[in-house]
Amino acid sequence: MNGAESVLRTLANSGVSVCFANPGTSEMHLVAALDRVPSVRGVLTLFEGVASGAADGYARMAGDPAATLLHLGPGFGNAFANVHNAYKARTPMVNVVGDHAVAHKPLGAPLASDIESVVRPASQWVRTVRDARSAALDTAEAVAAARASGVATLIVPADAGWEQSLGAVPALAVPVLSPVPDEAVSAAAVALRRPGAALLIGGAATSARGVDLAARIAAVTGAALLRDTFAPRLARGGGRPRPVGVPYLTEMAVDALSGLSSLVLVDTRRPVGFFAYPGQPSLLADPSTDLVALASPGEDALGALEALAAEVGAPASVVVPALERVALPTGGALNVDNLSAIVGALLPDDAVVVDEAVTASVLFVERTAGAGEHDYLFLTGGSIGWGMPAATGAAVGAPGRPVISLEADGSAMYTIQSLWTQAREGLDVTTIIIANRSYAILEFEFSRVGAEGDGRAAHELMDIGRPELSFAGLAQSMGVPGRRVDDVSGMVSALREALNEPGPHLIEAMV
Amino acid sequence: MNGAESVLRTLANSGVSVCFANPGTSEMHLVAALDRVPSVRGVLTLFEGVASGAADGYARMAGDPAATLLHLGPGFGNAFANVHNAYKARTPMVNVVGDHAVAHKPLGAPLASDIESVVRPASQWVRTVRDARSAALDTAEAVAAARASGVATLIVPADAGWEQSLGAVPALAVPVLSPVPDEAVSAAAVALRRPGAALLIGGAATSARGVDLAARIAAVTGAALLRDTFAPRLARGGGRPRPVGVPYLTEMAVDALSGLSSLVLVDTRRPVGFFAYPGQPSLLADPSTDLVALASPGEDALGALEALAAEVGAPASVVVPALERVALPTGGALNVDNLSAIVGALLPDDAVVVDEAVTASVLFVERTAGAGEHDYLFLTGGSIGWGMPAATGAAVGAPGRPVISLEADGSAMYTIQSLWTQAREGLDVTTIIIANRSYAILEFEFSRVGAEGDGRAAHELMDIGRPELSFAGLAQSMGVPGRRVDDVSGMVSALREALNEPGPHLIEAMV
Repeated sequence: MNGAESVLRTLANSGVSVCFANPGTSEMHLVAALDRVPSVRGVLTLFEGVASGAADGYARMAGDPAATLLHLGPGFGNAFANVHNAYKARTPMVNVVGDHAVAHKPLGAPLASDIESVVRPASQWVRTVRDARSAALDTAEAVAAARASGVATLIVPADAGWEQSLGAVPALAVPVLSPVPDEAVSAAAVALRRPGAALLIGGAATSARGVDLAARIAAVTGAALLRDTFAPRLARGGGRPRPVGVPYLTEMAVDALSGLSSLVLVDTRRPVGFFAYPGQPSLLADPSTDLVALASPGEDALGALEALAAEVGAPASVVVPALERVALPTGGALNVDNLSAIVGALLPDDAVVVDEAVTASVLFVERTAGAGEHDYLFLTGGSIGWGMPAATGAAVGAPGRPVISLEADGSAMYTIQSLWTQAREGLDVTTIIIANRSYAILEFEFSRVGAEGDGRAAHELMDIGRPELSFAGLAQSMGVPGRRVDDVSGMVSALREALNEPGPHLIEAMV
Repeated sequence: MNGAESVLRTLANSGVSVCFANPGTSEMHLVAALDRVPSVRGVLTLFEGVASGAADGYARMAGDPAATLLHLGPGFGNAFANVHNAYKARTPMVNVVGDHAVAHKPLGAPLASDIESVVRPASQWVRTVRDARSAALDTAEAVAAARASGVATLIVPADAGWEQSLGAVPALAVPVLSPVPDEAVSAAAVALRRPGAALLIGGAATSARGVDLAARIAAVTGAALLRDTFAPRLARGGGRPRPVGVPYLTEMAVDALSGLSSLVLVDTRRPVGFFAYPGQPSLLADPSTDLVALASPGEDALGALEALAAEVGAPASVVVPALERVALPTGGALNVDNLSAIVGALLPDDAVVVDEAVTASVLFVERTAGAGEHDYLFLTGGSIGWGMPAATGAAVGAPGRPVISLEADGSAMYTIQSLWTQAREGLDVTTIIIANRSYAILEFEFSRVGAEGDGRAAHELMDIGRPELSFAGLAQSMGVPGRRVDDVSGMVSALREALNEPGPHLIEAMV
C-alpha cells in the first residue's frame, strides 16, 4: 500500500467519508487511491474556495469533518478565505494539501512555495508529512485534531504518496474538550442571578441542545438570553427558544449590551466590533459590565451548560410559544422586504438556511423566525464568497433536508462555480440571489467609517450593475435551472417550484 | 490629507496609475481618496484573483507596476495564486492590503488574521504600515522595491488610512540591478565558444532587446539559443530570432539538454522539472554539462548580455528569415490542431498572446511562430486561473494592441469573473476557450506519476464535462459577446469578427 492509499484509508477509518477536491499533478496518487477506498466519496469542485466552503458547510451539518484535496500553496491560497471562515467557527475540517516531492521542493520549481506559512493563519493544527511511513499516523492525528479543535491542515509531499507505506491506522481517540472547573460554574450562577444579567452563547452552545439549556438557565435566573451575531449553526424555529442576536452595527450592539450587570460567555469571547470606526469603541460591552467566561472556545460548552443548569436548578424544559409565521405577500414589485417575507412564509420544515445575504440578512433572520424548526448557518469569519460553497457542502452533509442559500449578488460572484458542483451532485439547494446590483454593504460602510468625499470614482468601485450580470444565465451555463423574477407573484411561484422539484435551482430576485 | 490620500498620491508620484481593486470596509478611505487623486484609475474586479492576475498582465506589458487593493488576509488569500505567478516572474506589483485599525486587530474580530504570514511566500517585499505618518514613505518604498525586484505587499491598517498624514512623498530612486562582474562575462564567453554550448535565456532576457542580443551572441559563438519553457514575456514573430523553448516534459527536456558542453544562464536558474516523477531526475541538465550563471534573477541581465556581446565580438545584427505563416485551414470539424492553425493564420500584427492553453499550449506556440511580431505571455508560476485575469490586465497595460487569450476550459473556471471586468472596461480581448471538457493535463499526468489503478472514481475528478459548461452563456451573462463553434468555418468567422470588432469577445471552441 502506498502512502496515498494509507492516507485515504486512515481518513475513512477516522470517519471522514467525503473529500471536496480540486487536485493537481502532485495529488494524483491520492486521486488514484479513491478507487481503492470507495468509502471516501470524492466531490469535484472547479475552484478551491468551493471545496473549502463546502467542507465547512458539510461539517456544520454532518458533525463529522470532511477532507479537502488541494494543490500546493496556490491551491490553498484559493481555498484560504473559506478555510478562514471555518477557522473562526472552529469547524472540523481536514485539508490535505499536496506538495512537491521532498527532494524536488528546494529546487525552485514554478509551484514551490512555503505552504506552512500560508496555511498557519487559518489552521488550528498544521503538519507536513515526513514520508510515506508516517503519513497514515499523521492523518489520524489530523482528524483527531480537527474533531477537537477545528481546521487541521496536512501537507503531503508527492513522494510520501507514491512510496511504500506501513499501512493505514485506526482512528485515534479524540482529545476530550477541556472541562470547565466548578468555580467557573459557580461564578456564572452568581453572575446570572444578579438583576440585569445576560447569558451570551456562541459556537456549540447555539445547537438545539445548547439553546435549550441556555433558555432553561435564563428562565430560572431571570437573565436575558443573547447569541453571537454570526453563530456557526443556530437551531431555531417552531417552539425552540429564541436567543436575541447581538446586532452587527457597533452602535446598536453597544446599545443592546448597555447597562448589563454581568455578561456570562459560553463558547464565545467578549463581544468585539466587526470593524473599528473612528471615535467608536472596539469592545462592545459596557465597561461597567462584569464579564464572566463560563466556557471559552475549545472548552466543553455543553457540559458547562449542563452543570450550570443543575447549579441554578433550571427547569427540565421551557415552553416557548411558536411565533406566528409571517404572511405570504400577495403582489407588487419585489423588494427586500417582501422577498424576505416570502422566504419566511414558504420556508419548509427542517430546512437548512445558509445566510450570506449581507445587508439583507437582518430582515431574513427576522422573517424566518416564525417558520418551523430549521438550522440557520451564518458567515463566521467575515470573508464573503462563503454562502454558495457552504450551501453545497450542507446539502451533502444533510441529505434529505432542503437547503436555502440566501446570497447577495456581490458575494455570489466570488465562488459562483459552486453551482456546477450542485448540478453535478444533484444537490437539493435553492439559491436566492438578492440582486441589488451593488456592493450595498460598502455603500453603507463608506459613510460610517467617515470616508471623505462622495465622488464618482469611489462609487464606481461599489457599483456592480455595469454591465448587468445575469445570474439566471450563469446558473443555466453551469447546469442549474435558473430564472429571474422581479415581482412578488413570480418569486412565490419560482420558490414553490424550486422547493417542490429535487435538485438545485437558482432564483435571481431583482430587488 | 489623511493617510489613505497620502498613499494614493505617493503611488501616483511613483508612476502607478492603475489600481485593480476589490475593496472592503477597511479600505474605504483608500477608495474615497480615488476621487481626489484622479491620476490613479480604479478598475473594479469581482474577485481578488482577477485583480492580482490583471496586475501581473498589466506590468508585463506596461513596464510600470499596477497596484491591487485587497481586503485583509482573506482578500489576499483569494489573490494569492496569481500573486504567486507574478512572484515567480518577478513582475513588479504593489499589493495594498487593508487591515483592521491597530488597536482593533488583537481583539479577534472575525476578519482578523496574520496577514504577513499569508503574503510572505509570494512577496519579494513586505511591510505593515505603522501609522498614517509613515504610510506615504512606506508606499514609495514599496513601489521602488516592486520596480527593483517584483511583488511588494504593503499592509495598511484602517486607521493609518483615516488619520492625519504628513502628506505624499515623491518617488524614491529605484535600486539599480546588481551589475554582473567582468569575470562572469569572461567565463560565459569561454563557455559559449566551446563546441556543444548553449545559451539559456529567461526573464528580461526574453524581451525584444534580450532576444536580439542573445541571438547575436549565439551567432558569433556557434552556441545554441534556448529559452525558458515559461517566459514572462517573449518577443517573437516576424524577423525576430527564435530561441528554442526547453520542453515542459521532463524526459523531453532532459533529451533537449543532453550532451551540452556548457549551458550559460541569463536571468534564469538551472533547469528544474515542473514536477518530480518517480525514477526521473529533478534537475534537467546533463550532469556533465558545465553550468555558468551569467546573470541570476535580480541581476542586470540586459547589461550582462551587452557586455557579453562586446566580449565575443557579436555582429551588430542578425538576419532571421521570417517563417512562413501557417495556412488557414479550410473546413471540417474543429480540433486542437486546426484551431491552433487558425489562430496562427489570423493572429494580428502586434498582438499580445496570453497562453493558458495547458495541454494545447505547445501547438499554439508552434503555429503562431510564423505570425507577425507579437508578445507571448506564459504562465510563470504554474498556478492556473491566471490567463483571463492576465489578459484583462495586459489589455489595460497595452491599449491599442489586440489581446488574444488562449484558455483551457478547466483553467478558465478559476477566474471566470475576469470577463465582467473586460466588458466593464471595454477591453479589446478575444478569449478562445479550448473546450475539451476535461482536466486533460491531469489525465496525462496521472499515468506519468505512476499512479496505480485507472478507476472510475479517479477519472471522475478529471472530468469536467458533466454537466456541460456553456462558456458562451457564461460570457453573455457577464456582458461579453460569446458564441460556441465546433467547426473550422465557424471558428474562422468568429475569430475574424472578434478581431474586427472593438471590445471583448469570447469564442467557445469545442475540440
